[in-house]
Amino acid sequence: MKVLLIGANGQIGKHVVQLLKDSKEHTLRAMVRSEEQAQELKKSGVEAVVANLEGSVAEIAEAMNGCDAVIFSAGSGGKTGPDKTLLVDLDGAVKSVEAAEKAGAKRFVMVSAFQAHDRESWKDSPIKPYMVAKHYADRLLVASELNYTIVRPGGLLNEPGTGQVKAAENLEAGTIPREDVARVVVSALNKENTYKRSFDLISGENSVEEALKSI
Amino acid sequence: MKVLLIGANGQIGKHVVQLLKDSKEHTLRAMVRSEEQAQELKKSGVEAVVANLEGSVAEIAEAMNGCDAVIFSAGSGGKTGPDKTLLVDLDGAVKSVEAAEKAGAKRFVMVSAFQAHDRESWKDSPIKPYMVAKHYADRLLVASELNYTIVRPGGLLNEPGTGQVKAAENLEAGTIPREDVARVVVSALNKENTYKRSFDLISGENSVEEALKSI
Repeated sequence: MKVLLIGANGQIGKHVVQLLKDSKEHTLRAMVRSEEQAQELKKSGVEAVVANLEGSVAEIAEAMNGCDAVIFSAGSGGKTGPDKTLLVDLDGAVKSVEAAEKAGAKRFVMVSAFQAHDRESWKDSPIKPYMVAKHYADRLLVASELNYTIVRPGGLLNEPGTGQVKAAENLEAGTIPREDVARVVVSALNKENTYKRSFDLISGENSVEEALKSI
Repeated sequence: MKVLLIGANGQIGKHVVQLLKDSKEHTLRAMVRSEEQAQELKKSGVEAVVANLEGSVAEIAEAMNGCDAVIFSAGSGGKTGPDKTLLVDLDGAVKSVEAAEKAGAKRFVMVSAFQAHDRESWKDSPIKPYMVAKHYADRLLVASELNYTIVRPGGLLNEPGTGQVKAAENLEAGTIPREDVARVVVSALNKENTYKRSFDLISGENSVEEALKSI
């Protein structure tokens, strides 16, 4: 598949770039916000395109032109305020879904947040507004015509991945290295049994392949 | 109809309270956040219930028990930050929609915002995050099973209403007294031609009845 990665400069996105660079099954186009980031990627041999999640659906669709799949791993980040949560994590994500429909990129893998589907589990969370944004982005993706997979990782760690994970519709809270999230996202791309599925993801005792088979 | 008014203590809500108190066709239950606000309403002869839009769908559904219709005119207000925009204007609104489905209140009139359906018209707006919240609340309402009407008023004024308005799917920017918005919302309640319709609303040259007939 030809894959557009949205959020290629993010912490999970950088791992996805590495995995897709080495992939025999997929080719990568990285979407980033600035020309400088694009130049950096191009230097390392990665096709890159500049587009802004705060721009129009048409602009995002143009970046997807010719792609079969989209991975959305962008996030407004902890340093920005809730304004950006609304503009990027919610509206940017849904515009990407609409752009994928427009561009004919039928496969869409979303990096969401742990238990984003269940309001009760984050009703007292200090990041509740962020969870609201992820919740609705996911709901609009589910309502789209795309072959989506929604991956909801637990607490994100920067330590190296182990390749050992646990995936299910509802899990008890846990953590997972960002590198392992990237592995799951990339591995899910062509697994049809993960189409139209959403699941929590933490570190566990299964290989990525086994975990995805069980979904 | 028995009508639950959400946001009864708001600036539009207070006008709706007056209109529904005097109505021969409808009876009112006002939903407010605090016991104090409820006591105030009860003193003036209005049935009132305390529930919080930041609470659960079940809590909101309980407040709707026995109602045929819901008017949503709540807003987090200009003084709160975008956190509340996510929690109240988006999640609170959609939880109200889900609560109405649960409680069997099939009629739902939403006070939205001018052109909330069209991202292009607010792409450079200083209140873009608020518009994003209203946009998605409306989309989730449209996707619900309710007989909705979405009213999208122009710039809100506190001057007395004139009863003369203009309503259409897309209008050029304009203003409208809050009192006239309240008249339209109340008048729409039992107009079946406004079911599953969304429209902009500003001051104009038609009576409320005429304007709603044209929708």
